[in-house]
Amino acid sequence: MAKQEKEFVKEITPRSEDYSQWYLDVVLKAELMDYSPVKGCMVIRPYGYALWENMQQGLDRRIKETGHRNAYFPLFIPESLLQKEAEHVEGFAPEVAWVTHGGNEKLTERLVVRPTSETIICEMYRRWIQSYRDLPVLINQWCNVVRWEKVTRPFLRTSEFLWQEGHTAHRTQEEAETETLKMLEVYRDFVENDLAIPVITGKKTEKEKFAGAMHTYSIEALMSDGKALQAGTSHNLGTHFSTVFDITFLDSDGELKHVWQTSWGSSTRLVGAIIMVHGDDRGLVLPPKVAPMQVIVVPIAPKKTRETVLQKAAELTEELKKAGIRIEMDDREEYSPGWKFNEWEMKGVPVRIELGPRDLEAGQAVLARRDTGEKEAVELDSLTTRVPELLAAIQANMYQKALAFREENTHRTDDYEEFKKIIDEKRGFVISGWCGQEACELAIKEETKATIRNLPFHLQDEKAAKCVYCSGEGKHLACFARAY
Amino acid sequence: MAKQEKEFVKEITPRSEDYSQWYLDVVLKAELMDYSPVKGCMVIRPYGYALWENMQQGLDRRIKETGHRNAYFPLFIPESLLQKEAEHVEGFAPEVAWVTHGGNEKLTERLVVRPTSETIICEMYRRWIQSYRDLPVLINQWCNVVRWEKVTRPFLRTSEFLWQEGHTAHRTQEEAETETLKMLEVYRDFVENDLAIPVITGKKTEKEKFAGAMHTYSIEALMSDGKALQAGTSHNLGTHFSTVFDITFLDSDGELKHVWQTSWGSSTRLVGAIIMVHGDDRGLVLPPKVAPMQVIVVPIAPKKTRETVLQKAAELTEELKKAGIRIEMDDREEYSPGWKFNEWEMKGVPVRIELGPRDLEAGQAVLARRDTGEKEAVELDSLTTRVPELLAAIQANMYQKALAFREENTHRTDDYEEFKKIIDEKRGFVISGWCGQEACELAIKEETKATIRNLPFHLQDEKAAKCVYCSGEGKHLACFARAY
Repeated sequence: MAKQEKEFVKEITPRSEDYSQWYLDVVLKAELMDYSPVKGCMVIRPYGYALWENMQQGLDRRIKETGHRNAYFPLFIPESLLQKEAEHVEGFAPEVAWVTHGGNEKLTERLVVRPTSETIICEMYRRWIQSYRDLPVLINQWCNVVRWEKVTRPFLRTSEFLWQEGHTAHRTQEEAETETLKMLEVYRDFVENDLAIPVITGKKTEKEKFAGAMHTYSIEALMSDGKALQAGTSHNLGTHFSTVFDITFLDSDGELKHVWQTSWGSSTRLVGAIIMVHGDDRGLVLPPKVAPMQVIVVPIAPKKTRETVLQKAAELTEELKKAGIRIEMDDREEYSPGWKFNEWEMKGVPVRIELGPRDLEAGQAVLARRDTGEKEAVELDSLTTRVPELLAAIQANMYQKALAFREENTHRTDDYEEFKKIIDEKRGFVISGWCGQEACELAIKEETKATIRNLPFHLQDEKAAKCVYCSGEGKHLACFARAY
Repeated sequence: MAKQEKEFVKEITPRSEDYSQWYLDVVLKAELMDYSPVKGCMVIRPYGYALWENMQQGLDRRIKETGHRNAYFPLFIPESLLQKEAEHVEGFAPEVAWVTHGGNEKLTERLVVRPTSETIICEMYRRWIQSYRDLPVLINQWCNVVRWEKVTRPFLRTSEFLWQEGHTAHRTQEEAETETLKMLEVYRDFVENDLAIPVITGKKTEKEKFAGAMHTYSIEALMSDGKALQAGTSHNLGTHFSTVFDITFLDSDGELKHVWQTSWGSSTRLVGAIIMVHGDDRGLVLPPKVAPMQVIVVPIAPKKTRETVLQKAAELTEELKKAGIRIEMDDREEYSPGWKFNEWEMKGVPVRIELGPRDLEAGQAVLARRDTGEKEAVELDSLTTRVPELLAAIQANMYQKALAFREENTHRTDDYEEFKKIIDEKRGFVISGWCGQEACELAIKEETKATIRNLPFHLQDEKAAKCVYCSGEGKHLACFARAY
C-alpha cells in the first residue's frame, strides 16, 4: 500500500475504537453531508442526495401503488392551529422554530415552521370532506420539517430533515386501522428489500406513541453497535384530530360522523441506518438497489497500454450502462488505482471492475465485491449477465448478514439482573416480559437507558412469563434496547 | 345539456369577462390548489402536484444530462450571511420571513427562511473549493423558498413556492458565461417542448437583473391575456459573490483566483403559465407530455349493457396503460357521462375515450381531443398506435397554436404614441428600439406599466432605429410588455 493510500484509510476511526467518531468520519469522508453554518442543520451533498433520491423512488413507488397521491401543504402553521390538539402541541411546541416577522413587519400571529403537518392538513381536510363519497382521502407529502433539537447528529437527528408524511382520512375505525398496518408493511417491505435492513414490526407503548395518536406502530432496526433505530412509524390517529378540527362527513345512513385518520412517516434518518447497519472500517457499504453508483470501473493502465485499456473500459462502461446498471468509469490520471480503490470503497460502491492490460489479453475483467471483498475474474462477454447477478447476490447477502447479526444480538430474559448486564455489556435487543405499566417502563429507562422499542407482532401470541421489572403478570413480550 | 352539466360549466367565469377571475376559477375548480390558513401560502392539491411532478421529471432529466447533480442545503440562512452581498441583501431583505425563536429560546442570531440560496451555498463552496481540480462545481437543488409577498396569486406569486435553483462555480469567466447560456437553453427546450409554450430568450436589463448578478438572461412567455410571464432565469454572477464570500482556488499557474459563478431557477410559476397559455372557457388544457392523466376513458353504458361495456373499457384501459399511456377509467355510477365530460375537460385531460354499446358493436371507440374538440372513431385494435400519435399531434398543435397567438400579438413600433396605444388596447409584446438608459426604461414603466422583458437574442443583430421614448440612438431592440 502506497503512503497516500494508507493515509486515506487512516482517516477513519475504527468502529471498535469509537463508534460515534467512526460514524462522523464516514458521513464526511464519503461526502454524504457537510456541516452548515446553521446550528443543527446539515448540507446533504450530491452523493448523499443521490442515495436519498434512489430511496425516495423506491418508497414513492410503493406509496403510489397503494393508492396514495402526493400533494404539498404550506411550510408554516399558524400558532392557533398547532394549539388545537392538546397532546400534539405539548409534544411539539418545545421544539419548533417560530417565525415572528415577515419583511419588516411583525406578524399578527406567530407561525411555526412545520415539525409535522397533521394540524394544517386537518384544517384542509375539514374543508374538503363532506360526504362518505369523499372518503378515503389518501395523501402523501415529501418535504422538509424542522424540530429544534439541542443535540444533533448527521442524518440521525438534525434540526431540519427531509421526509415523507402520509395523511389519510377514512369512514370507519377498521378502515383506518387497516391503512395504518398497510403502511407499516410498506415501510417493512421497503426497508428490508431495498435497504437490506431487517426490522421488527410492532406496536409502540402509550408512553412512546406519537403525540396525538390513538396508537403508533413502528419498524425497529438494530445498528452494528447494538443500539436500536426507529426506522418508520405509522399512527392510527383515531378521531383525536378530526374531533378538535371538526372534520365530519355525512354517512350513507344520514348521520354526521367524524373521520378516522392515520399518519405515517419516514425520513433521511434511514440514511443513518444504512450507514450503521452495513458500514465497516473501510467506510460505507451501500445496498445495490439504492446505491448512487452500483459499479465503478477502474482501468489499471501503465503508460504504454493506457489508450487501449481506457478505450475498452469506456466501451464496457457504456455497454453496462445500456443494460440499466448505474455505472461510472474513474479515468482520473492524478490518482493511483490503489487510491481509487480506497475512495470507492469508502463510498460504498457495491462492485468494482478492475481492467488492466493482462485482463484485456485474457479477455476478462476482475469484479471485486464491496460487501465480502471477494474477487472474481469474468469474461468480458459475460459482464452484462454477471454484473446484475452479482448485484442481486450482494443485495441478498447484505440482508442476510444484517439479519444474522440481529439474531446473534437478540437476547431473551425475564431476569432483571441479566437484563441490565446484557444492556450494559452486549447491547442489542432484549426480549422480556412486561406488565404493561408505565411505571416499570420508566424505571427501566432510568436505570438502564433502555426503552421499549415496540411490542413485536410476532411475539404477541406467546405468553410472557412475568414483568422483567416488577415480576408482576407479564402482559406483553416487549423489545427493549438503547436507541438512537 | 342536463342541468347539472350546465351548472358545472357555469361556475367558471369566461376569460373575456374577467380574466383574473377565470384564472382563479380554473385553479380551484380543476383542483390544482386550494387556499390555506396561512396568508399567501397555497396548498398544491394532488392533481396540481402530479402535474408538477411530471414537470420536475422533464426538467430534472435535462439538468442531470448536462452534468449537474442534486443536493440539499439548509432552509435557514443566518442574517449575517444574507448581509454579505450588498445588492443581494437590498433585493431580498424586505421580503423575507424571519425566525427569531427556537423552542422557548430567543436565537442569538436571527435566521431568514431562504428566499434563494446563493449565500448559504457560497459559504459551502468556500469550504469545498481549493484547487482548479475541484472545478467546475455543478449543483442543483429542488426545494421550497419563501418571499413575503404583499399581493399573491396562486402559482404566479405566493409567499412560499417550490422551485429548483442551480448553483455552479467555474474556473474562468468564459466557462461561467457558457454555463449561464446553456441552462437558459435547457429552460427554453423544456418549456417549449414539454410545456408547449414558445418563449423569447434574451438578456435582462441592468434594472431587471437578479439582485447580485453581473447579468441575467430570461425566457419570456406570452399569456393569453396579452401579458408576459418570466418563465425562467439564468444569472451570470461573475465574481460578485465569490469576492465577498472569499471563494478562491489555486489555479494551475500557481495563482489564487476567485471562482466565476452562475445560478438559475424555475418554479411552480410555470404551472400558472400552462394554465394561462393553453386554458380556455371550459377550463384547463394540459400538454400531453406533463398531463397527470393523458387519457380518460368514459364508458357510456345504459343498464342492460353496463357490464359488457365496463369490462371492455377496463380491458382497453389496461392495454393502453401497458403501452405506457397515463390513463384512467371513470366508472363512477353517480355521475352522468355529460357531467364526466365536463369534469375531465375542466381538468384539461388531453384525450377522452368514449365507449358505448354501439361503439362496441362496431368494434370502435370515439376519441375526443381536448385542444380542438375534434372527435374521431378509431378501431379498438388500433388504439395502442393511434392514441400515442394523437397525443403527439396534440402536443405539437398546442405549441403551434400558442406560437401563432404570440406572433399575432407581437407588435413592432418605434413611435411612442402607437406604443402606448398597443400596450393599452391590444397588449402583447412590443418590440421597440431603446437607447440603453435606465431613465427611459423607468419612464416607460411609469407611464404604461410596461417593462422591458428582455433584449431578445434573435433581434440583437438588427439595428434599432431609435429609442422609442427619447428618440435617441437605438442601442438595442427590446421586448416590452406588461407582465405578471
